[in-house]
Amino acid sequence: MLNKNVVNFIGCDAEYDEAKVVLFGVPFDSTTSYRPGTRFGPAAARNESYGIETYSPYYDCDLTDYSVFDSGDIELPMGDSSAVLDLISERTRDIMNDGKFPFMIGGEHLVTLGAIREMVKDYPDLNIIHFDAHADLREDYLGVKLSHACVMRRNSELMQSGKIYQFGIRSGDRTEFIRTPQDMNKIITRKFDFEGLSDVLNELKGKPLYFSLDLDVLDPSIFPGTGTPEAGGVSFVSLLEALRKILSSDVNIVGTDVCELAPNLDQSGVSTAVTCKIIREMLIGILKE
Amino acid sequence: MLNKNVVNFIGCDAEYDEAKVVLFGVPFDSTTSYRPGTRFGPAAARNESYGIETYSPYYDCDLTDYSVFDSGDIELPMGDSSAVLDLISERTRDIMNDGKFPFMIGGEHLVTLGAIREMVKDYPDLNIIHFDAHADLREDYLGVKLSHACVMRRNSELMQSGKIYQFGIRSGDRTEFIRTPQDMNKIITRKFDFEGLSDVLNELKGKPLYFSLDLDVLDPSIFPGTGTPEAGGVSFVSLLEALRKILSSDVNIVGTDVCELAPNLDQSGVSTAVTCKIIREMLIGILKE
Amino acid sequence: MLNKNVVNFIGCDAEYDEAKVVLFGVPFDSTTSYRPGTRFGPAAARNESYGIETYSPYYDCDLTDYSVFDSGDIELPMGDSSAVLDLISERTRDIMNDGKFPFMIGGEHLVTLGAIREMVKDYPDLNIIHFDAHADLREDYLGVKLSHACVMRRNSELMQSGKIYQFGIRSGDRTEFIRTPQDMNKIITRKFDFEGLSDVLNELKGKPLYFSLDLDVLDPSIFPGTGTPEAGGVSFVSLLEALRKILSSDVNIVGTDVCELAPNLDQSGVSTAVTCKIIREMLIGILKE
Amino acid sequence: MLNKNVVNFIGCDAEYDEAKVVLFGVPFDSTTSYRPGTRFGPAAARNESYGIETYSPYYDCDLTDYSVFDSGDIELPMGDSSAVLDLISERTRDIMNDGKFPFMIGGEHLVTLGAIREMVKDYPDLNIIHFDAHADLREDYLGVKLSHACVMRRNSELMQSGKIYQFGIRSGDRTEFIRTPQDMNKIITRKFDFEGLSDVLNELKGKPLYFSLDLDVLDPSIFPGTGTPEAGGVSFVSLLEALRKILSSDVNIVGTDVCELAPNLDQSGVSTAVTCKIIREMLIGILKE
Amino acid sequence: MLNKNVVNFIGCDAEYDEAKVVLFGVPFDSTTSYRPGTRFGPAAARNESYGIETYSPYYDCDLTDYSVFDSGDIELPMGDSSAVLDLISERTRDIMNDGKFPFMIGGEHLVTLGAIREMVKDYPDLNIIHFDAHADLREDYLGVKLSHACVMRRNSELMQSGKIYQFGIRSGDRTEFIRTPQDMNKIITRKFDFEGLSDVLNELKGKPLYFSLDLDVLDPSIFPGTGTPEAGGVSFVSLLEALRKILSSDVNIVGTDVCELAPNLDQSGVSTAVTCKIIREMLIGILKE
Amino acid sequence: MLNKNVVNFIGCDAEYDEAKVVLFGVPFDSTTSYRPGTRFGPAAARNESYGIETYSPYYDCDLTDYSVFDSGDIELPMGDSSAVLDLISERTRDIMNDGKFPFMIGGEHLVTLGAIREMVKDYPDLNIIHFDAHADLREDYLGVKLSHACVMRRNSELMQSGKIYQFGIRSGDRTEFIRTPQDMNKIITRKFDFEGLSDVLNELKGKPLYFSLDLDVLDPSIFPGTGTPEAGGVSFVSLLEALRKILSSDVNIVGTDVCELAPNLDQSGVSTAVTCKIIREMLIGILKE
Repeated sequence: MLNKNVVNFIGCDAEYDEAKVVLFGVPFDSTTSYRPGTRFGPAAARNESYGIETYSPYYDCDLTDYSVFDSGDIELPMGDSSAVLDLISERTRDIMNDGKFPFMIGGEHLVTLGAIREMVKDYPDLNIIHFDAHADLREDYLGVKLSHACVMRRNSELMQSGKIYQFGIRSGDRTEFIRTPQDMNKIITRKFDFEGLSDVLNELKGKPLYFSLDLDVLDPSIFPGTGTPEAGGVSFVSLLEALRKILSSDVNIVGTDVCELAPNLDQSGVSTAVTCKIIREMLIGILKE
Repeated sequence: MLNKNVVNFIGCDAEYDEAKVVLFGVPFDSTTSYRPGTRFGPAAARNESYGIETYSPYYDCDLTDYSVFDSGDIELPMGDSSAVLDLISERTRDIMNDGKFPFMIGGEHLVTLGAIREMVKDYPDLNIIHFDAHADLREDYLGVKLSHACVMRRNSELMQSGKIYQFGIRSGDRTEFIRTPQDMNKIITRKFDFEGLSDVLNELKGKPLYFSLDLDVLDPSIFPGTGTPEAGGVSFVSLLEALRKILSSDVNIVGTDVCELAPNLDQSGVSTAVTCKIIREMLIGILKE
Repeated sequence: MLNKNVVNFIGCDAEYDEAKVVLFGVPFDSTTSYRPGTRFGPAAARNESYGIETYSPYYDCDLTDYSVFDSGDIELPMGDSSAVLDLISERTRDIMNDGKFPFMIGGEHLVTLGAIREMVKDYPDLNIIHFDAHADLREDYLGVKLSHACVMRRNSELMQSGKIYQFGIRSGDRTEFIRTPQDMNKIITRKFDFEGLSDVLNELKGKPLYFSLDLDVLDPSIFPGTGTPEAGGVSFVSLLEALRKILSSDVNIVGTDVCELAPNLDQSGVSTAVTCKIIREMLIGILKE
Repeated sequence: MLNKNVVNFIGCDAEYDEAKVVLFGVPFDSTTSYRPGTRFGPAAARNESYGIETYSPYYDCDLTDYSVFDSGDIELPMGDSSAVLDLISERTRDIMNDGKFPFMIGGEHLVTLGAIREMVKDYPDLNIIHFDAHADLREDYLGVKLSHACVMRRNSELMQSGKIYQFGIRSGDRTEFIRTPQDMNKIITRKFDFEGLSDVLNELKGKPLYFSLDLDVLDPSIFPGTGTPEAGGVSFVSLLEALRKILSSDVNIVGTDVCELAPNLDQSGVSTAVTCKIIREMLIGILKE
Repeated sequence: MLNKNVVNFIGCDAEYDEAKVVLFGVPFDSTTSYRPGTRFGPAAARNESYGIETYSPYYDCDLTDYSVFDSGDIELPMGDSSAVLDLISERTRDIMNDGKFPFMIGGEHLVTLGAIREMVKDYPDLNIIHFDAHADLREDYLGVKLSHACVMRRNSELMQSGKIYQFGIRSGDRTEFIRTPQDMNKIITRKFDFEGLSDVLNELKGKPLYFSLDLDVLDPSIFPGTGTPEAGGVSFVSLLEALRKILSSDVNIVGTDVCELAPNLDQSGVSTAVTCKIIREMLIGILKE
Repeated sequence: MLNKNVVNFIGCDAEYDEAKVVLFGVPFDSTTSYRPGTRFGPAAARNESYGIETYSPYYDCDLTDYSVFDSGDIELPMGDSSAVLDLISERTRDIMNDGKFPFMIGGEHLVTLGAIREMVKDYPDLNIIHFDAHADLREDYLGVKLSHACVMRRNSELMQSGKIYQFGIRSGDRTEFIRTPQDMNKIITRKFDFEGLSDVLNELKGKPLYFSLDLDVLDPSIFPGTGTPEAGGVSFVSLLEALRKILSSDVNIVGTDVCELAPNLDQSGVSTAVTCKIIREMLIGILKE
């Protein structure tokens, strides 16, 4: 008897019961203001993951030694951001309730809000470390509040003050950079690079952390496949190092996401390959003792 | 003193006061369920229109002999379909109130609803002739009612019964093709081609008509640049003939749109060039005595 | 508990036991002499099938009314054609032994040989109807006998004389067209179109038939995504008609394949969409009473 | 001892002395007003010719039975149209002086002028049959007289009246279509198709003819790879038929060119494959007794 | 009453009278010897500038605080370099005469000559700082003197000796690098990077300077969209630093250009986004007190 | 009399007798497991080499001062790896027998085996320095032993122990990195970069060396055009330096290859341009006294 065609991220073929981490994709880009395509991100990452190895020469570990379940992509009602966020929250809740670690693959960055809404219910003192080229702190974008350009502002409204730490930021309008003291209480922004990350991790020792990775924090030379590429970003190696710092720290990481791969904008496939490798490194980093 | 950089569709440089037809673009694709990119349609059509001539060897007429005003693209709040439709209605109303003919360039097909909502206020007995590969008659798409897959259904809810005539339809789910008698009252569907168009035009003599052209009615061999290409479509020449029939008929045409060019999906530029030529032919057809 | 990510061709989600037809993909292109990429064909067809509908307005039938199982792609040892053919034969045999209909999606055309080798064991008087732009009748290609350019010659060596009927052929070297009488006994070639197909189907009434569809029989205007596109091919509509003739005939169809989609060579996605629609029409045609 | 890497159009490997036809490429596009890329045409045709066969199933003849020499591309001083034309004239003259048939592969259409300048010296009563989507009859293009948009006008100034016959024309400004009687003496224009071609060939019996083929006469569905694609063109099959009519007629054909392939604008490679096949058919047509 | 569709570089919507800087585009690439496409550069930069922000996190300044006028692209007679240069000189002169700062967006690098011809009239002791991968110092290119490969040589012929300073140069023929002492008087070339830039700026204190930026000075990893990409270039960050040095120096900058973006050669859009950001940074650098 | 169209890598137009280095291309990719296209590598490098200069500003030398012969590409029986390797060995042997230096351009990395098989006959103590992202040390790939993923393992089986030195390796399965002591005798692997290269060169003083360059050792930011791009690679400048170290060392270099350019995967052309420059630098490095 032949088997059904199960497709999962490479090395993530555990049974659900055994899995510690659960992947899910959110192929959403309806609020993207400039160039769409992140809807193709999760499937591309999954399908092209077979172009990388499960073994990491950085960690000297193999993904196949751990148990990860890939629950596939959520089917989405395109054009209704509110309904989409509900579906994300529901999936996140299911995974949390089963005592597993939710690992979301976007999609545009708005998807993070769907996860955070559930996370803050269980972790009222939740912290976010946010790597991105863009501050994503607008009050609204042409009147739209549920926009990828506003996602960290929306998150901050659900969280305690001073819990969001941004790194790598190099684009935004003036209001996103020059903020009132009140705003400054809420969000700590590091421009251009990861300086200060170790200090933040020290502060957050033992505290709950959600890590949100907008891949456009990378320089577009290595990651052109994204809607709004911003030159002057971090290198792949420095991102790997920063990931390692976070994942090997004593912070209590409770969830994560990887967003903003738009594979249609990079026909060489390099951006997708980079995404796959980062997901592999993050999975090993999360699961390694 | 140097001039500002005014960019209009080729040959459409009339002053507003003199213009009989007013173009406007709606770069919207937030509800697109499959492959986005129609947001790039109106600007591509305008920018690439300089690759065609203003003279039509079909009509033996020149677009520069008529007065068309190009009001550019509406700036849109991506992700909020309802707000987008309001902006379309507003622009349509402005043009109608000034006694001019609104000619909308999409964007995905949902944009038609924004125009029809205003049209039916002035023309309660409005008719629609609709060329498309897809029926666009779903009740909803994964719960979303304001979806490009539902636009003709939404339109029909605002209109009198039996006023929508579809041609070229070759894709949809079963419910869109096999309808209850009640539905059949409302919408007349011709599969695959334009047979019966002349009869419809005879029936509609003197009556108000909105003409909605989803360019994917064309065969993808000549129009690959669209989100959901459907083989088995009409040829360019047969579309030209059908357009000519409509525009030279005795029907009272009160508005029109051209939708679903996704230029990013056709790197040869042919789909955009086809769109430009069809817009030229339609403008001449509308304006020619 | 969340489900595994099962990916099948749209509408082909039957359980294996209930299925009458079993799909399998063979992502192979190692012998392709000119431009590779058909290895990406089966996955592209499966993934992009969600851009079409399950309902066919041609048949007025819905694929979801039938039972098709998609067993996914065979994992292949690239570079070893002989081992690849063994894997194809094995999969074909499994399906045949379970009393089901094998429906293979290539891959380059050499894959047909793997299926025919099994078919002729059960049907010594097997016939092949073969739609293609290329004759595929070479003795060898630069010394290689297991080449996509030789596949029908290899098949003919396993079959009784006069059992292969080719249609649409418009490319080959001189020896493939101008054959000795001996060769002519074996293979009946119709150049350019499908003329004579009905007569062949009449002759084959009740006899076992394998139908092999090289998609490059289509004109490259509608199917550019293939390694060696040949202008002057058949139209989509005439291919649909020919398929319908075969599948509704009284011939005993025992297996089929669809080959030579190279999606990387058509960035518009039209070739893949065409393939999906043809697979849908073929599946309905095979399964419809 | 190893051989140098000689690259010629497939099947065109005759020694110069034996050759009846001499190919040469002119990779020029400096006056192209819209989208450049025809400079890549001749090399693409040569390199990709190995994707077609030398045998023609249309003629049932093989290119390898004839003697054609491929002299490669002329090295061009980009930006100096006048110098480029001189180099073309020189190459044409060399071939004519050696009693061979010049077959030029463009490049943009201006290149034809370089050949005609030499041709009219030897054949003062030279005729041109010109297949094209564009009339190419402007007096100048933004002041530039040596422009691809003016090439047939420039040719006509060197020729006797009434010797240019255009077919397939479907784009131009008004002055190119609606001409004074004086102009009409000079150039006979058939819009859209090849109607009347047989009559022209009868008239020209025994007279010298240069045949200039702008490939954009083809419909862009089958030939998207050109600077200014114009929908509504002729099919590949009807072009083949027209070519056959000309080449098998009793007219004295003394030179030819094939222009306006811009391979960079068609990533599927179909336009280049079409060009190769047309060159093969033309070569066989010219050389066949 | 609806407005005309004015399209300008983002944030550059000042009225002409108020503007200090005037942008203009020169979509020219007729002398490009290798791969054309810079003709699409200025429109791409303008259209895609809406993908970046007006606020610069580098300067902590916003482009909207300054007055820049965008006069659009010059309409060009393709194929006539001399006429094109005249049009550039005319536009430059108009802007200079109105007491404004000319900021040209190319187009291939030859366009600089059109600006310099006017500049040296008002500033006989004009200096040029030139960032480029290529020396552009040939006497001629296959006999063509008005070629992008010769532009700095042509400029030097109009200027006093020793006034051209090149940085980043890493490609040229031998004569461009190994020069006679006489030549060395004229042009100072720094290979590979910007070392020595500060010293040059000190020397030029108070003196008139034209700054010409060939974007291919950037490494092709971050700027692939150019005709002749040369690996081993400078990073985006080091270019930003060099720009800042120049624009904040005490030199009297009187004009500038940004050349050689060929957006058609980078389908990811990164090269265009980089160009937009550099233009923004340059505009702020020029206008900031 | 016109010349045949000889096409060689720029500056490599020596007569065979005079040449010290002989280039040959091997357009092979049949065992490529992931994304094919390296078959297009050698022709692309040759054709696009005209976009670079023959003069090297790094060496301050000109390729035209040396004698290199380009023998073109070997015609290959696609799908038969064993036959392909025989043809490579034969070409390598011919060049060696004529006392010249073989310089092979791949194709996938398996091609190296064809050269090594001949090299070890003349140099039983042959050493290999191998730059690559991948270890290429598998025993087999899905049962295939003649696979690009196994090439260095196959080579090692023909060589003395401890003669293969790998640098830049950053991908492989666990068995390729964590080896038994016995394996460790055979192959020395440096992860990620070129550290230790000088020491190796010192050790190898006077000994025979084959240098094999898999271009994917480069970071995909500068070299995206390859089948399996691996982020975290070396920069162009550091590769140039390493090449220079090897080629100016006192080791006896007896052959080399440059593999794994897949130009179809990088439409910007940058990867091909990089390859051309590296080949130029290597040729000068080899030939410079």
